[in-house]
Amino acid sequence: MTQAIPTRLAWIAVDWGSSNLRAWALAGDGEVLAEAEAARGMLGLAPADYEPALLATIGDWLPAEGRVTVLVCGMAGARQGWREASYRSVPTALDALAEGAVRPATEDPRLDVRLLPGLCQGADAGGFDVMRGEETQLAGLAALESGVSGPVCLPGTHAKWATLEDGRVQGFHTYMTGELYRLLAERSVLAHSLGEDDLEDPACREAFTAAVAEAVDAPEAFTQRLFGLRAMDLLDDALPSGEARGAVLAARLSGLAIGLELAGACRDLDAGQTVRLIGGEALCRRYALALSAQGHASEIIANQRAVLAGLGLAHAALDPADND
Amino acid sequence: MTQAIPTRLAWIAVDWGSSNLRAWALAGDGEVLAEAEAARGMLGLAPADYEPALLATIGDWLPAEGRVTVLVCGMAGARQGWREASYRSVPTALDALAEGAVRPATEDPRLDVRLLPGLCQGADAGGFDVMRGEETQLAGLAALESGVSGPVCLPGTHAKWATLEDGRVQGFHTYMTGELYRLLAERSVLAHSLGEDDLEDPACREAFTAAVAEAVDAPEAFTQRLFGLRAMDLLDDALPSGEARGAVLAARLSGLAIGLELAGACRDLDAGQTVRLIGGEALCRRYALALSAQGHASEIIANQRAVLAGLGLAHAALDPADND
Repeated sequence: MTQAIPTRLAWIAVDWGSSNLRAWALAGDGEVLAEAEAARGMLGLAPADYEPALLATIGDWLPAEGRVTVLVCGMAGARQGWREASYRSVPTALDALAEGAVRPATEDPRLDVRLLPGLCQGADAGGFDVMRGEETQLAGLAALESGVSGPVCLPGTHAKWATLEDGRVQGFHTYMTGELYRLLAERSVLAHSLGEDDLEDPACREAFTAAVAEAVDAPEAFTQRLFGLRAMDLLDDALPSGEARGAVLAARLSGLAIGLELAGACRDLDAGQTVRLIGGEALCRRYALALSAQGHASEIIANQRAVLAGLGLAHAALDPADND
Repeated sequence: MTQAIPTRLAWIAVDWGSSNLRAWALAGDGEVLAEAEAARGMLGLAPADYEPALLATIGDWLPAEGRVTVLVCGMAGARQGWREASYRSVPTALDALAEGAVRPATEDPRLDVRLLPGLCQGADAGGFDVMRGEETQLAGLAALESGVSGPVCLPGTHAKWATLEDGRVQGFHTYMTGELYRLLAERSVLAHSLGEDDLEDPACREAFTAAVAEAVDAPEAFTQRLFGLRAMDLLDDALPSGEARGAVLAARLSGLAIGLELAGACRDLDAGQTVRLIGGEALCRRYALALSAQGHASEIIANQRAVLAGLGLAHAALDPADND
């Protein structure tokens, strides 16, 4: 944070999620001048809290005079957020997100805030589904790779699988994998048996890929295999003891949860088709391992790179005067 | 509770679970003279707490002199319980449970306590699995219906499916259905969308059976359909509003969870084969509806009837002097 930022600042990019917000100060050439993060997510904010939370995070970046565009993706645009930016229906072009942006009322004259919309899918278009935030990462992929086509997976609490065609989202599906894993690992009877896994460890790696294969082959046995983890802990003499035991069982649970997702999501892929993964590195590498065990190559695009490219694409398309 | 109980008392039956215990005072002819319940389950008790908890519940039933057999099934015999009664391996005859009973040390000279074992299954015999308590209900079924064969389901937190053959358990599988439903309904993002369902209501009933069919047909889409409940709540104009909305969505979640279980458990059943259900009435009727939608008849045996018959069978086989 130096005096140089206000001078060179062209606009501010914000990814505002359920639990926190991340912001980047950008120069006209796209250079990141500064970044900031705060634990002020949608779940803890009333509409009136957003402007103060934003100013507390990026206020230092603003010049004394003039107006700066702050372009926001994510849950700030949800109905329970700052102001609702209505979902756009798929199929839709990814360079058209800016058309659905809305301006929340702000008091500080230096702020020109725009909230980007999420995407929704109707029953007839592939089944009811919604995303908010991930569409901007998909737009980033379309900006980085013009005319991109193929399956894209964004792993996480609610993992998204989108089908792109020439830079458009044709459809998408959400799998509740991350939330399911966390509930089972922390709050079910399995919590007593599980530790922290480490996929660099060969025993964890093997337990993980074996569980992926089992879940893909027999998704109908999923909850049976869940309880099987508890029974293994009680009965299986081949399991290691101590911390290694909890690690192997956690790797197995992770494999079952991700495997159940792949059973559904990879069903209509061509054999060997490459899947693009957008997300945090550790989780994307876990998915890449699972996909590879199922014969699919993958290509990882880092979270921040995708979201900045997506916000950049939308920023370039914003009408300075428009958006009510 | 009258003076008549100690006079006519022949033995005491106890079903001691994770969260509570239920006890019955029985006459020699099997008549239930009294029953009692207490919220003193295995999860809240150290080994030294069991005898006081038992006496607080059934102490009034004991005669001033003499010794009474108290036959206990369930978690009191677990490793973390009063004293471990080691699992018996399947396949096993259901009238042989008494052979595995153990006597915990007691101080009150009027008590002759026996803890019945659970059942376990090894990797080669169908996959690691355990039960403790349900084996006594299965024994009850075998006592009520000599030479019973066929599939038996005991719905619940950890639903058990056992295959019986001429009064023996050939194998069994546990599905974590009840626990999964509760975690999703109470602690996931879906909690905001769900209410209480009522399967007497036609809309709930239809949502439930449709969800069962979807989960049976496409178990690989399970976690996708979970998130779909959230998306439906946001987008589906055909849903009712108010309380009816939460009720329909809860019925749908219940149908998805039970349907995923049936996808696995009914896979190897013959078309139209009858499934015996042992458990609480409301939950058994829910399963009967799901099974019926899948073309399976069912027959419900009430919890208490099964457990008392099973404890009675084991009691008749107890060696008064034996069991260490």
